[in-house]
Amino acid sequence: MKLVVLRMGHRPVRDKRITTHVALVARAFGADGIIISDVSDSSIKEKIIDVRDRFGGDFFIEMGQNWLKVLNNWKNSDGEIIHLTMYGIPLPEIIEKIRVSPKDKLIIIGGAKIPSDVYKIANYNVSITNQPHSEVAALAVFLDQFFQGAEFQKRFTDAKFEIIPAEKGKIVKKANLGDL
Amino acid sequence: MKLVVLRMGHRPVRDKRITTHVALVARAFGADGIIISDVSDSSIKEKIIDVRDRFGGDFFIEMGQNWLKVLNNWKNSDGEIIHLTMYGIPLPEIIEKIRVSPKDKLIIIGGAKIPSDVYKIANYNVSITNQPHSEVAALAVFLDQFFQGAEFQKRFTDAKFEIIPAEKGKIVKKANLGDL
Repeated sequence: MKLVVLRMGHRPVRDKRITTHVALVARAFGADGIIISDVSDSSIKEKIIDVRDRFGGDFFIEMGQNWLKVLNNWKNSDGEIIHLTMYGIPLPEIIEKIRVSPKDKLIIIGGAKIPSDVYKIANYNVSITNQPHSEVAALAVFLDQFFQGAEFQKRFTDAKFEIIPAEKGKIVKKANLGDL
Repeated sequence: MKLVVLRMGHRPVRDKRITTHVALVARAFGADGIIISDVSDSSIKEKIIDVRDRFGGDFFIEMGQNWLKVLNNWKNSDGEIIHLTMYGIPLPEIIEKIRVSPKDKLIIIGGAKIPSDVYKIANYNVSITNQPHSEVAALAVFLDQFFQGAEFQKRFTDAKFEIIPAEKGKIVKKANLGDL
C-alpha cells in the first residue's frame, strides 16, 4: 500500500513555511511522498531534499501538476482519496475503515480555498476536530492514527545523521559512511 | 490542572503563520491558553481572538513576556515544564508519567534556536519522533495523546458558529444567540 500526500491551494510566498512543514510531517510520519499541485517553488523542494539527504529515506516530492489530473489519475489506478477538512466526519469514527482497506491512499491537505469538487471526488472527507486550526496538525494526527504510532519506531535508510533520544541536551550520531 | 503552551523563539514576520497555527492547535486541542514570549504582534493576537469569538471558549493569549521569567514563575508555583524537541525522550515512553501528574503543565514549543538552559530547566524533554518536522505537528500529537483524543468530543462555550460533521460538503450551524 502506497500513501501519498497531495498539498492543494498553496499560495506562493505566503504558504512557503506551512507547506514545508506539511512536507516534513509527511516524511517523518511515514508517507511515501508529497505532490504540491499547481505551483512550483524550487526552494521548498530543495529544503525537503536537503532533509532527506541528511536524515535518510526515499521520500519523494513533486510539484506543479494540475490537482484535478492528480485526483483523476489516482481514481483511475483504483486508489482511494481522503480529504482532511474541518467539515468532514470525525477521524475516530472512520479511521478503522480507512486503515483496513489495502488500496493506495492519497491524503489531500488543503488551504483556505478548496474547490467543492474535492469534497465530491474524495472517498472520505475526514475532520481532525471541527475547529479551525492547521493543516500541518491535521496531517500529523491523521498519519499518527493511520499508522498507529509507527512513526516513533521508524528508521530511515542511508541517514547521515541520527538523533539519539536524551533526557537533557542534544545527541547527534553521525553515520559512518566509509568512503562516501 | 491547567495546561498552557509557551511559544518561544518566534521570529517576527517569518514565523507569523506558524505561530498562528501553533496557537490555533493549542486552542482546538484543549490547552487553556498560549504565551508567546519576547515578541509582540497584535495581528496574531487579533486572529486568535477572532477565532475564539466565532467558535467559542475562553482560550487566552499573552505576548511579550520574557521567556526565562515565564519559566521561573511556573517553577515557583510548582508547575511542571515539558519541552517538545526532536532531541528528547520519545513521547510513548513518557506520556503516561506526564499524564498522571496533577500539576499544572507548561508545554514549550520552540523554533530553531532554543537556549540550552531550556533543556536543563524543563522537567521533561520530549520528542515527537527524532526527525525534523514541525512544532505545529509536535504540539498536536502531544496534546492528542495527553488528552487521549478528548479534542474530538470537545465543545466550546458561547460559540457563534458550529461545524456539523458531513460526509460531503460543508454544514455550518449558526447559534441562536437571542438578542445578543
